[in-house]
Amino acid sequence: MEFSEWYSDILEKAGIYDLRYPIKGCGVYLPYGFKIRRYSFEILRKLLDETGHDETLFPMLIPENLLAKEGEHIKGFEDEVFWVTHGGKTPLEVKLALRPTSETTMYYMMKQWIKVHTDLPLKLYQVVNTFRYETKHTRPLIRLREIMSFKEAHTAHATKEDCDAQIKEALNLYGEFFDEICVPYIISKRPEWDKFPGADYTMAFDTIYPDGKTMQIGTVHNLGQNFAKTFELEFETPDGEKDFVYQTCYGISDRAIASLISVHGDEKGLVIPVDVAPIQIVLIPLLFKGKEEIVMEKIKELNSTLKSEFRVHLDDRDIRPGRKYNDWEIKGVPLRIELGPRDIENGQALIVRRDTGEKITVEYSNILEEVEKIVSMYKENLKIKADEKIKNFLTVVDFESDVNALSEKVKAALLENKGIILIPFDESVYNEEFEELIDASVLGQTTYEGKDYISVARTY
Amino acid sequence: MEFSEWYSDILEKAGIYDLRYPIKGCGVYLPYGFKIRRYSFEILRKLLDETGHDETLFPMLIPENLLAKEGEHIKGFEDEVFWVTHGGKTPLEVKLALRPTSETTMYYMMKQWIKVHTDLPLKLYQVVNTFRYETKHTRPLIRLREIMSFKEAHTAHATKEDCDAQIKEALNLYGEFFDEICVPYIISKRPEWDKFPGADYTMAFDTIYPDGKTMQIGTVHNLGQNFAKTFELEFETPDGEKDFVYQTCYGISDRAIASLISVHGDEKGLVIPVDVAPIQIVLIPLLFKGKEEIVMEKIKELNSTLKSEFRVHLDDRDIRPGRKYNDWEIKGVPLRIELGPRDIENGQALIVRRDTGEKITVEYSNILEEVEKIVSMYKENLKIKADEKIKNFLTVVDFESDVNALSEKVKAALLENKGIILIPFDESVYNEEFEELIDASVLGQTTYEGKDYISVARTY
Repeated sequence: MEFSEWYSDILEKAGIYDLRYPIKGCGVYLPYGFKIRRYSFEILRKLLDETGHDETLFPMLIPENLLAKEGEHIKGFEDEVFWVTHGGKTPLEVKLALRPTSETTMYYMMKQWIKVHTDLPLKLYQVVNTFRYETKHTRPLIRLREIMSFKEAHTAHATKEDCDAQIKEALNLYGEFFDEICVPYIISKRPEWDKFPGADYTMAFDTIYPDGKTMQIGTVHNLGQNFAKTFELEFETPDGEKDFVYQTCYGISDRAIASLISVHGDEKGLVIPVDVAPIQIVLIPLLFKGKEEIVMEKIKELNSTLKSEFRVHLDDRDIRPGRKYNDWEIKGVPLRIELGPRDIENGQALIVRRDTGEKITVEYSNILEEVEKIVSMYKENLKIKADEKIKNFLTVVDFESDVNALSEKVKAALLENKGIILIPFDESVYNEEFEELIDASVLGQTTYEGKDYISVARTY
Repeated sequence: MEFSEWYSDILEKAGIYDLRYPIKGCGVYLPYGFKIRRYSFEILRKLLDETGHDETLFPMLIPENLLAKEGEHIKGFEDEVFWVTHGGKTPLEVKLALRPTSETTMYYMMKQWIKVHTDLPLKLYQVVNTFRYETKHTRPLIRLREIMSFKEAHTAHATKEDCDAQIKEALNLYGEFFDEICVPYIISKRPEWDKFPGADYTMAFDTIYPDGKTMQIGTVHNLGQNFAKTFELEFETPDGEKDFVYQTCYGISDRAIASLISVHGDEKGLVIPVDVAPIQIVLIPLLFKGKEEIVMEKIKELNSTLKSEFRVHLDDRDIRPGRKYNDWEIKGVPLRIELGPRDIENGQALIVRRDTGEKITVEYSNILEEVEKIVSMYKENLKIKADEKIKNFLTVVDFESDVNALSEKVKAALLENKGIILIPFDESVYNEEFEELIDASVLGQTTYEGKDYISVARTY
């Protein structure tokens, strides 16, 4: 099955996201999908909170004149902004944009709050819906008109050094987040022509989907003093001078969810990382006539034992076990535990891993410990697999000083290996002309195993 | 100070909400305010999850024809809907409403999901932003154009009995929620002329603000089969017949936050219920020359001890203690613990309660237990106070068969006692004419201490 078909299919079958809403690019997070989102964003929130970011909530509507304040910024967004023009039947005096992102909103407010160096650093974030009038083909959780979950962080600093340090913190923090949700990535500095509108430069996280195309899953922007000058974010330095703040912003969206689904899924369905799995362990009683009570009693006991540490679900539906296995494999539940009369007699239980399909018979008396062990192997394995998956999609080519020869080589490598092609960094081909020549995207400047490359790929 | 002045003032001073945004009725949840919101909605989520509600996320935009599908419903909202008419510079073919509430969105999707009685009950909720083009005076967290936090639950059931039972569950659940955040309430069945557009009937929670005006803080609607018929929510019953589902919906908004702030605050600032306090205990070192190290060491130890159970903040700013006391009183931190050299010598610490101002000297060796005790007294006291506050604002008047005499009596009672006036229930005055006569609002039919009343009040 083609990846894109698999993807649409699994969103529906596993109960992640329903796109049958009568607006293109707008859909519904279903209960199971929402739980994955909830656990994922809880991890992200925790990482942000621990590093001194404060969660806030800013308005969704932006007056036209405010959105247009930063020239480059508005140029980057004006074609894809939704406009509110009426309240009831009354035309509004000032058109209101649905936020495509919140720089202008937040920096307008920061001006009220930042007066003196002791007000800095200011590190804020919010998790909100944002909007893009996408004219391209939309794709659930990937390219939406309503991005349902956009975590955007915005920081302001007194010095360039603090600002640069913040970029590092953000990169580490995002790296940790993607590690925890088992999404592999490479980081690139986006080329000038592809940076965030209004930024000094943009660092980006890309992952690679099973079809070999890359997906941008997180961006970190160094805004320098550009927005600060536009929004007059001036403060008094310790020396009593005036200076503009230095700013960064960084974002992660629903694509994080799309990616953890896409990277690990297989032909049977989802394979969900333990920490974000709505159900971590499913219990299936094997009922035989006359033994139902014994089994149900034992499995309920097991349920309470495991519930102390895991999100457990006891599937006591009156259908045959095979159908249950199938249902939970589709939903990607990490572990399945089967318990039947013979297991009970033997003081055992059967654990089946979703990631490897491995069946492991364990001593019942020791089951919590056994489960913990297997869970940690599962986690480890998903991380290793994630790593392998991205490595298999990285191809280093030798540099050729002849541009045409180089571009042919890159095109051939892209055709054969897909994924990301790494070209030893060279200014002479680091430009949009080369990008056109290879008919693929330049992700940017990428450090890989200590060396500098130009990374190129076909992207989503 | 007048209540409304106090309210605006405290939102700013305590760092709850900033309304200096250039759109009327749109503002910013500041970090401290956002934390109160986060903890409050976590309690609400927990109550919903425990009673089998599933969290979801539905689109924010509603096509005009979908919003207009239910006739009464749209009539109730059409004057206050924001309309998106353009994407970039392109006029949209169908105007899109910013959701004022999500019945139409959700029920359109429910049609895709509900086929047979085993699909029921369906109990969904979401926490989202909603929009009203308010032309009236807006008020932060109370009457907003962007309601930043609307928890809306929507359920569908196979029978009228299940639906009625759901109304009871919702009322209990909301009651428990308001109890936990220490907001007192009375429940009324809203009169026909004030029910939710499209509902069979509406039950509402009202609290009373310090100025004696009531605030609607939660509503529970029995929709019967009205929306189901419009949205063709038909299912196959166990007998193989076709029937329409029975529906309920219920909502709680930012007003919950506004209310917990308003009901308990005093002239010094906020008094926050423990469970939703961003900081539950603040530690203030009393530093004297030469003893700084001893005190700081001890208070850091105290910090780690208490952190295991509470949200603690050690205020080690280099300002005098008096200013610290003041800051944390404004922010309503439940307990303050002061520790100085003499306390350490005596093996003691001083605990100050924000709710009563009481100062309690406790044995340091036993401090975690002492704090637990005081925290539970604080909780208890806030609940008792909440109860007293609403009771003091309830006035029962005797019935008069002469309408004019009755209305004069009610008006006099309103003038003298403010709050809610309870009139023994009588059909003859349960109408809009009487409402006009008394120049106040009929909240509805209220059961109080086992008797039936018509409740009237001046409302926000």
